[in-house]
Order: sequence, then structure tokens, then C-alpha cells
Amino acid sequence: MARDDGVTRPSIDTIEAAADRLNGHARRTPLLNSPFLDEIAGRPVWLKAESLQKTGSFKYRGARAALTALSDEDRARGVVAVSSGNHAQGVALAAKELGVSATIVMPADAPALKLANTRAFGAEVITYDRASVDRDQLVEEVAAERGLSLVRPFNDPMVISGQGTTGLEIAEQASEAGIKADHLDVLVCCGGGGLSSGIALALEDRAPGWRVRTVEPNGFDDVARSIATGAIQSNNQTTGSIQDAILTQAPGNLTFEVLNRLAGPGLAISDGDALRAMALAYQRLKIVLEPGGAAALAAALFQPDAIDGDAVVVLGSGGNVDPPIFARALATLND
Amino acid sequence: MARDDGVTRPSIDTIEAAADRLNGHARRTPLLNSPFLDEIAGRPVWLKAESLQKTGSFKYRGARAALTALSDEDRARGVVAVSSGNHAQGVALAAKELGVSATIVMPADAPALKLANTRAFGAEVITYDRASVDRDQLVEEVAAERGLSLVRPFNDPMVISGQGTTGLEIAEQASEAGIKADHLDVLVCCGGGGLSSGIALALEDRAPGWRVRTVEPNGFDDVARSIATGAIQSNNQTTGSIQDAILTQAPGNLTFEVLNRLAGPGLAISDGDALRAMALAYQRLKIVLEPGGAAALAAALFQPDAIDGDAVVVLGSGGNVDPPIFARALATLND
Repeated sequence: MARDDGVTRPSIDTIEAAADRLNGHARRTPLLNSPFLDEIAGRPVWLKAESLQKTGSFKYRGARAALTALSDEDRARGVVAVSSGNHAQGVALAAKELGVSATIVMPADAPALKLANTRAFGAEVITYDRASVDRDQLVEEVAAERGLSLVRPFNDPMVISGQGTTGLEIAEQASEAGIKADHLDVLVCCGGGGLSSGIALALEDRAPGWRVRTVEPNGFDDVARSIATGAIQSNNQTTGSIQDAILTQAPGNLTFEVLNRLAGPGLAISDGDALRAMALAYQRLKIVLEPGGAAALAAALFQPDAIDGDAVVVLGSGGNVDPPIFARALATLND
Repeated sequence: MARDDGVTRPSIDTIEAAADRLNGHARRTPLLNSPFLDEIAGRPVWLKAESLQKTGSFKYRGARAALTALSDEDRARGVVAVSSGNHAQGVALAAKELGVSATIVMPADAPALKLANTRAFGAEVITYDRASVDRDQLVEEVAAERGLSLVRPFNDPMVISGQGTTGLEIAEQASEAGIKADHLDVLVCCGGGGLSSGIALALEDRAPGWRVRTVEPNGFDDVARSIATGAIQSNNQTTGSIQDAILTQAPGNLTFEVLNRLAGPGLAISDGDALRAMALAYQRLKIVLEPGGAAALAAALFQPDAIDGDAVVVLGSGGNVDPPIFARALATLND
């Protein structure tokens, strides 16, 4: 995996190795569908419900994959992570399971549930003000001062490999469900691109004609613009969408390299469509999605003309949502 | 399975045969857990999420098992069923998949979503007034007039066998999850006893020390009283709880025979505890449960002293709930 530049790259080999390490720990989440959603989308829609993963999001996969790849010495010293919530919970639970001490740097305005859960998993939480503090600098300082290993949220080969195990399962489950398609779009809710790049690498091996498409919030489509221009682009703002789980400034060099090679054009959706998709997931699939976790479903349902293929697979990437936002989603069923 | 009285009984053989007929059609729903629920209950809680079954409840299993057991002639004439909603949807979808025409008799005050979905699956819906009409008489009349096969909601050996396939999966999944217990209570949301008796028969074969316990709404504990007295008992009222899916007047002779032999003492829970359990299933498992589908979880969480064993398995039996009731459940998180 190491190329001339000496950087370890994620690959189908590192994904398969991560799957071995996650076996018996990560849940094989179901692939769900509903004829009612198919009718709205105009094609069969299959949703991989990673909201049903431990900690309520796919992030547990990458966290456990990263922690189990550390040396015994590094594990004994502990880990640190920075996250608005889902990566925090994933690292905190994986650390607890493995007996590793975890320090998590989180924005003070992260959803209350995500803050509380991270603490409940036994992690030490350090909060910061999203508007005034450079979180990356803060976490580097904490890591250096305390001698902790940094578990990056997405731009890390082991994290990408862990998330990529989702792609292995999608290929298996699609086969079990009888989904036969030479070409098919796989829509993935996208912040920094860890999940989408991992799935893209897995599907390159297991379902070569299938194409990952990233889905981001309107106004935060850094990954779509990066893919479109062939160079890493950033967002101008870091707040202003309820899709908090996928508000990331820019893809990393590792995730971008994969997505630039393998992903189709990126999509973007509105907060209103995220809420409508959450409501339909409640009504038709009986699952709880958070706004950022419903972005891919929203694209499948409300932007069908932008998608290729006789069927579509979407990631339901997380379900950690506070009740007031969920109530807003349910209210859209009356519109 | 036919004994001296000539009545066909459900058994592990008919359950295994039903599992073969359901293979590739019914979903293998996940067994979910959360450390937060374990802490409330004081023991590990495992929830079998049949709310994620096709049509949002376990009823699809029994319906498809019954329809696939009919002769070609009977299937060609069509089927009729009576149901407050979940059995209706199960029969309607199974009939649609098999190309069988379905007529469903439903109370006019059934949840709007259940009425709409049943019609959307292509069934003809006949509504009746719950207070003034004898639904069993009505459905017998419709069956006789139209020459339709009646698919009973619970007191039918093929329906019980279909529901019992859930028990086969519980035994398999508990083993995969490493749940090792010689004695363990399996709590099952219970109306007429189709699901609980089917699971009891499956576990008698697959996990002989495990004991099914029925969970009913307070004031509608006909099955618990039937088990306690050794004779079929009825409820005095038929309305007055939000747990609409499990308001049944009395167990049938087939379900009672099984439960009287195999089940432990029955439990009953309040509507308030059903709402609290729904909220915790939303928050901790990211799934949608309806009030009657959350009854077993409510018993595990809020009546731990009534339960035996180092762990507990509960059925999450359905998720078809209108948004106003779900909003009431979410509001309990603020109490």
C-alpha cells in the first residue's frame, strides 16, 4: 500500500483486513427497502441502515479498525479524537471495548445526545468554541502534550478501511437481495469522504460497474467541487446546516485521491429535503435517521433525474438526532 | 401434527417448513442492543427488531406462511382477513407478492397509516364500527359470500408457524451474539398469542431452557390470566389503550394450548411505559416502535424484578405508529 511517497494508502487488502478485525464486533446492518419509497424515487431504493450500527452511526467501524491497528504501546498510552459527535462516540465505544483511554475534543454546540453519549462511554470530553478555536490545532496540542495517538475522523488509511467494510457488506447483501445491475449509483452521505472513499474502494473490487456518488448539504459541497475540478476545494462556511454530521471543511488528501479516481459527480441537497427524507424513513422503513444521515436518501427520492441505473443503493449513515429536530421532520408528513 | 381431535397443530416441523417457504422473502431482522438500555434494565437486553420486517411488523411472516400453504384453487379464489392493521398489511403484501386477491376487514378507527398502507398494497378494505359490529361474524359472512379463504390473525397453525420462524432466528442470532444462558426469559408483545406461541414452540426445540413470557397492556391481560388459571379468559373491554396492535379479546384454542404448556407467567404494562420504551428505542436503538410493539421492551426496562435470567430477549414486534403518538413518546424524554 505504500507508494513512492511513503504514505500508506487504503486498499481492498486493508479493507478486508479491517473486516477480519471487526468480525463479531461491528453489526452487519440490514439493507432495507419499501415499495412506497420505490414509487417516490421512480426506481427500487435500497438503504444500508448504518444508523443501526453500534453508537448509531458507521463511525464505530473506522474507529475500531484504527484502534486495533495501533501498536500495543500506542494503545496503552491512549487515543484522542476530534468530532462533532458520531466519530466521537465511535472512538469512545471502541476504546471502551478495547480497554483504551480516550480523550475526545468536541464543539460545545454539538447535539446534546452526542455529547452525553460520548461521556457515558467513559471518554474524557474537551469542548471548544466552533467559531473561535482551530480544532485541528487544539487536538494536535492535546495529542502532543499527553502522548496520545490521534484517531483522525476520515483522512486515515485505517479509518477509511474500517468504513470500507460497509461496502463489502453492500455487495454481499445486494447479491442476496437479488439486485442485478451492471451499472448502479451508490449514494453516500459525505463529510470528509471517509465512508464514501472506503465504499468506493470496496465496490471497485466487488462490483466494478457500481459508482459511488457523494451527497452533501447545499452550500457545503466541497467534495463535489473537488471531484468536479480535480483538486481539493474548501467550504467558505462551517455552520449553517442542520446536517451537522457531514459539515466538513474539505476532503483529505487520501479520501480525495480515491474519490477523484472512482466517484461520479457529487450531489447536494437542502436541509428541507433531509427532513422530508427522515420522515419517510420513519414512516416507511421504521428507522431513525439524523439529518446528515438522510442526505443520500433525500437525493434518491427528490433528485431522481440526477441518478443513473435501474435501482439505487443509499447509505443511511447515522441516527443520532435530538427530539426537536426529529419532531420537525415528522411535521413534514402533514405538508 | 393432527391429533385425535383431527385439528392440525403447529409444531417445530411446521415452523421449519414455514421457514423454507419464507426464505428469500421475509427479512432476517437484526437483534439489537445498547449499553444504555442494559443499564436501565439491570441486565443485558437484546431486542429482535421485527418492526424492520416487511410492512413494519412480524405479521408478514404468518401471512405469507398461510397463503403459501393454501391449495392453488383456494389461492385463485382469494383471501379475506380481519385486522386492526398489522395483520391486514401482512396479508395484503403477501397476497400482492403471490398474485392473490385480498379483502381486508378493518375497524374504521384503525391508525390512518395502517388503513392507507393496506389499500396501497392493492387490497380491498371493508371498514366496520368497532363498538357495534361483531367483526368475526362480519368476516365469516364476507368469506362465505365471496368464496374466500379466511386468514386468521393468530389462531391458525400456518400463521403460528410463520410467526414461529422469528423464534428460529432468535436462537441463531443469540448464539452468534454470544448469549450463553441456560435459563432466560423471552418477552413477547402479545395480542392473541400467535407470535408468542410460535416462538415458544421454536425455542422448545432450539433453546429448551428459555421461557416465553407474554406482555400485554394493563386491563387487556387475557392471555396472562388464561395462563394463570389454565383456562381461556377474555377481556371485558376492547378499547381504551394506545397499544392497538395487541388489543385482542382472548387467546385462541391453538395459541392457548401452546402457551399454557410452555409460557411462564404473563406480564402487563401501562400505556405510559409503552411510550417511554418507544422513546428509548428511538434514542438508543434508532428504531421506530409502535406502542403495542414496545410492550415487551417496556417490561424489560421497567419491571426488571419480574424477570428471570442474566439477560433478556424482547420482541420489538411492530413500528406502524402515527406521528402524533410518536411525538407523545418523544416528549417523555423531557420528563
